[in-house]
Amino acid sequence: MKLKVYADRMSQPSRAVIIFCKVNGIDFEEVRTDITKRQQLSPEFKEINPMGKVPAIVDGRFKLFESHAILIYLACVFPGVADHWYPADFFKKAKIHSVLDWHHSNLRQGAVTYVVNTALAPALGLPLNPQAASDAEKVLSSSLSKIESFWLQGSGRFLLGGNQPSIADLSLVCEIMQLEVLDENDHNRILAPYEKVQQWIKDTRYATRPHFDEVHKILFKAKARLQKQRSTGENSETQLSLTTTLPSKM
Amino acid sequence: MKLKVYADRMSQPSRAVIIFCKVNGIDFEEVRTDITKRQQLSPEFKEINPMGKVPAIVDGRFKLFESHAILIYLACVFPGVADHWYPADFFKKAKIHSVLDWHHSNLRQGAVTYVVNTALAPALGLPLNPQAASDAEKVLSSSLSKIESFWLQGSGRFLLGGNQPSIADLSLVCEIMQLEVLDENDHNRILAPYEKVQQWIKDTRYATRPHFDEVHKILFKAKARLQKQRSTGENSETQLSLTTTLPSKM
Repeated sequence: MKLKVYADRMSQPSRAVIIFCKVNGIDFEEVRTDITKRQQLSPEFKEINPMGKVPAIVDGRFKLFESHAILIYLACVFPGVADHWYPADFFKKAKIHSVLDWHHSNLRQGAVTYVVNTALAPALGLPLNPQAASDAEKVLSSSLSKIESFWLQGSGRFLLGGNQPSIADLSLVCEIMQLEVLDENDHNRILAPYEKVQQWIKDTRYATRPHFDEVHKILFKAKARLQKQRSTGENSETQLSLTTTLPSKM
Repeated sequence: MKLKVYADRMSQPSRAVIIFCKVNGIDFEEVRTDITKRQQLSPEFKEINPMGKVPAIVDGRFKLFESHAILIYLACVFPGVADHWYPADFFKKAKIHSVLDWHHSNLRQGAVTYVVNTALAPALGLPLNPQAASDAEKVLSSSLSKIESFWLQGSGRFLLGGNQPSIADLSLVCEIMQLEVLDENDHNRILAPYEKVQQWIKDTRYATRPHFDEVHKILFKAKARLQKQRSTGENSETQLSLTTTLPSKM
């Protein structure tokens, strides 16, 4: 039975899992779980992930959620996944776990909270919260600074000095890509100080072409739609509604 | 060269790592890194963990931080660690990763924010934030509810239906133990609805005796001190100062 990946490409961890499968030639069925329609909260989906979050996978009788756990599982059980994605070496593996664990309470927390409270909240039926956005920006900037000065300090182009990407590169770059939906000036202001981070995003995108761009298409569409709304002044909270902001087929 | 564990026993992930080493007979040196003295922010410590957080380890020339990554590493490289702590089986391992990843943005986020903003903030030189505490309590209660109804739903006494504890049990139980520093009524109110959770804490404590209680001694001392301050009315923000709340030798 084919691997099933329950995902919404507007979700950054969903994209990381889909790109990983495509880059590694894993035969899978993508089951679209539309978060703007709250499909992740349906009883059917909660049979797969009772936490009501995408992504989740079903591999035969085995169910799994949490994107980092999924990426590790896929790297371990599918033949043909190159070692650099999740090395067999205990020391390298430990460092990847360290980056992935750090991601949760730093880059992820900052980026998700900032993006939701400056751009996506209305599309998710939530109010924008400027104070939460301001607090989150501090966490986000501090996280980007740590990636620039520490995680990317090695000789290679990727995290931990690697010459080829690991699952950590894919996970963290997909997280940062979510900033694309921000106002252009805001996006540039936040990323501008971090030259290594910008180069690393390009390198990860290049290393996973053409899948990276293909899977991110929906994000660029949402970005264009939001940018258009902003430029035409349709940027009030009520107008950035679910139907106008995010396409129903995203 | 002996494994070095940089830790402060008032930190719940530090305790998890120390207990793991002791239970598994790992020969290690505990290097006390006092967070009330901000030793985790010293240049010497930042050579080990530039993020300025405990725990961290140095094993020969290898440095590592993030407690989950450390627990996995120790389980993999030290001979004699029983399989149940971190099973070789890919499927069991994947489920443990899933719990540990879930922990970051749920139980940990809720518990840490709640405990800091209702009890420990003054000792850390921070103001108490009732709104943050209120928001955190929702995350904490929701997380405990998910542990009760989902993670502990199997036939065994431990997470994921296990008959013996894994690193996930140790990590999550140490997190919940931090609630001991709360006001007694508050502590009971939060935990009372979750009978399975309460039994699981006892079971994990029993399975790791006598090390669990020995390593938690400092927490019970801090609890007693805080409770005394509360009962004598010395519970204003200024009086719950660093020196009166937490012992210098904790």
